[in-house]
Amino acid sequence: VADLSSFETPFLAIDLDAFQRNVARAQSYCDEHRLAFRPHVKTHKQPALARKQVEAGAVGITCQKLGEAEVMADGGLDDVLLTYPLLGPAKEERLATLVRRIRVAVAADSRDAVEAAGRAGRAAGREVGFLVECDGGLGRLGVTDPDAAADLAERAVATEGVSWAGLMTYPTSERTRPFMEATRAALARCGLEPPVVSGGGTPTLYRTHELDGLTEVRAGEYAFGDRAHVTSGVVSLTDVAVGIVATVVGRPDDDHVILDAGSKTLSSDPCASGDAGFGLVRDLPEAVLSELWEEHARLEISRCRRPPVIGDRLTIVPNHVCGAINLHDEVVLHGSGEEARWAPVPARGRVR
Amino acid sequence: VADLSSFETPFLAIDLDAFQRNVARAQSYCDEHRLAFRPHVKTHKQPALARKQVEAGAVGITCQKLGEAEVMADGGLDDVLLTYPLLGPAKEERLATLVRRIRVAVAADSRDAVEAAGRAGRAAGREVGFLVECDGGLGRLGVTDPDAAADLAERAVATEGVSWAGLMTYPTSERTRPFMEATRAALARCGLEPPVVSGGGTPTLYRTHELDGLTEVRAGEYAFGDRAHVTSGVVSLTDVAVGIVATVVGRPDDDHVILDAGSKTLSSDPCASGDAGFGLVRDLPEAVLSELWEEHARLEISRCRRPPVIGDRLTIVPNHVCGAINLHDEVVLHGSGEEARWAPVPARGRVR
Repeated sequence: VADLSSFETPFLAIDLDAFQRNVARAQSYCDEHRLAFRPHVKTHKQPALARKQVEAGAVGITCQKLGEAEVMADGGLDDVLLTYPLLGPAKEERLATLVRRIRVAVAADSRDAVEAAGRAGRAAGREVGFLVECDGGLGRLGVTDPDAAADLAERAVATEGVSWAGLMTYPTSERTRPFMEATRAALARCGLEPPVVSGGGTPTLYRTHELDGLTEVRAGEYAFGDRAHVTSGVVSLTDVAVGIVATVVGRPDDDHVILDAGSKTLSSDPCASGDAGFGLVRDLPEAVLSELWEEHARLEISRCRRPPVIGDRLTIVPNHVCGAINLHDEVVLHGSGEEARWAPVPARGRVR
Repeated sequence: VADLSSFETPFLAIDLDAFQRNVARAQSYCDEHRLAFRPHVKTHKQPALARKQVEAGAVGITCQKLGEAEVMADGGLDDVLLTYPLLGPAKEERLATLVRRIRVAVAADSRDAVEAAGRAGRAAGREVGFLVECDGGLGRLGVTDPDAAADLAERAVATEGVSWAGLMTYPTSERTRPFMEATRAALARCGLEPPVVSGGGTPTLYRTHELDGLTEVRAGEYAFGDRAHVTSGVVSLTDVAVGIVATVVGRPDDDHVILDAGSKTLSSDPCASGDAGFGLVRDLPEAVLSELWEEHARLEISRCRRPPVIGDRLTIVPNHVCGAINLHDEVVLHGSGEEARWAPVPARGRVR
């Protein structure tokens, strides 16, 4: 059986056992609380892993980009929520093509987006679902006024080619509740009841039941964990399913070694406040990944009892799993049941 | 003629006119000072652009990874300096395969790397060049003792399959000079004279002639510029050849808009000290790209006289060009002489 030591570094490894544990835990939580679960595939970008999430009980998947959704449709996924405004003729045409192939809903916050979805749905001869995006407190996208949310829902109801599917919000927390309650009240005044109220985010995933009125949850990082989620306690280090395996290629002085993985392998996504450095070395938690260049990392090892030597391999838990996987054309999948193997990341780099 | 407005956002655009100006300027500087120029292709990852650099007069190219060098060899480049230690049987075998195809030198700082190069050279039946990497003050890789550098050079001279090619250092500055002088003296005591002394880095490119004894320069970012180099004054904004074109997809309040480009399009590489944000908006230099998510950016526009509206396109100069291009499978090449077109980035993501 091929083990990880036979793969050339640096590479990103995904532990399928940990992945399956995380998928099962989240699905079981959602089942228990009668929540639909719609995993976000922007984290892994791999139809093969999305299929495992659907096989475990997910109602469909979430995508952030049309390009991701197209790759997922190619890979057999047939129910996608696209949580991004699709504006402009090129995206409308691609949306129409996608809607001919699979069930698609989009979430957005403007009349322009409703009209674009309507044109795509009419061109495809099949309705596009539309969820009204409500600002979850981030001030990013999303309607910020309950009456405006109801207006947009009415517009979706009235638009041919569109089927109004409900509300979507991100992030989801206690702070979201007053707005969502006011929006439901405004909808009720229009005689509307949202079929779906979709909330999202790994940090609050296991507290979704405390937030009244959500019917669906979206999350991506939950299936892998990363350093931010270990720090926040949402995923334990034992359950982290992602690691970048790197080799020590230099030891400039007693207190530092250099690894063959940098910002083009790990991403330069920053650590959570309270943490230090560009990732957590699993084998040496007392070491600090203090500096990254594109293809080198400097590891401060002064507190390590057994300092690594040139040629040693170390596994790095990235600060942010999504940024890391997106840098890899191929990853190594491994687990107790199967031989470790290279697998492609087909939706990697789908920026459009 | 296709102009940039016909391409779907977000995309990374490369201005070939500015690229050629930068390439010509650097080559002309090197010619004037009788320096060999060996551009670093880790910045653009595109054999077609590397060929333009060689056509302009470069002696060959520099690569940071074997995978980059393999792609460049596929693309017709035939003289590569690999400035990275190649350790382990997999890399040795790939090096041997590459050496059968093109002229290759490696720069490294250990006997293990000399021996690996020797085995690869003997397997290929063709010598691998070897440059002794000297620490340029970064404390990253490189021999830190002049006598150790001379020892390693002697080792390279004595190793079958290897041809000692000289010294390499990064970064290159006034601080490097005493070490390089001491190393040349140590080499002279062994009866050795370095055929090549290779220095590197865009920040000091146009001051290489002030540093005695360098025969060759390596630089990658010089051909594009980016926000860091505009700030430092090495490349003027007019000559910046790279931009990420994004669309305004939301306006949460009067002071902010949201763009359809985030850390998966721009990278989260930080700005230089003194700058703020994740890139410079060319069309709105007074705006601040204050927050990035994976596929969204928040632009603070309170100081803009003509605030952008939903649907507008903006061009972002990235903080760090190398991190940005590496995220794109395809880029848009444009220039006065030719129609704007998609072009692949064949060495993107070659982490090994």
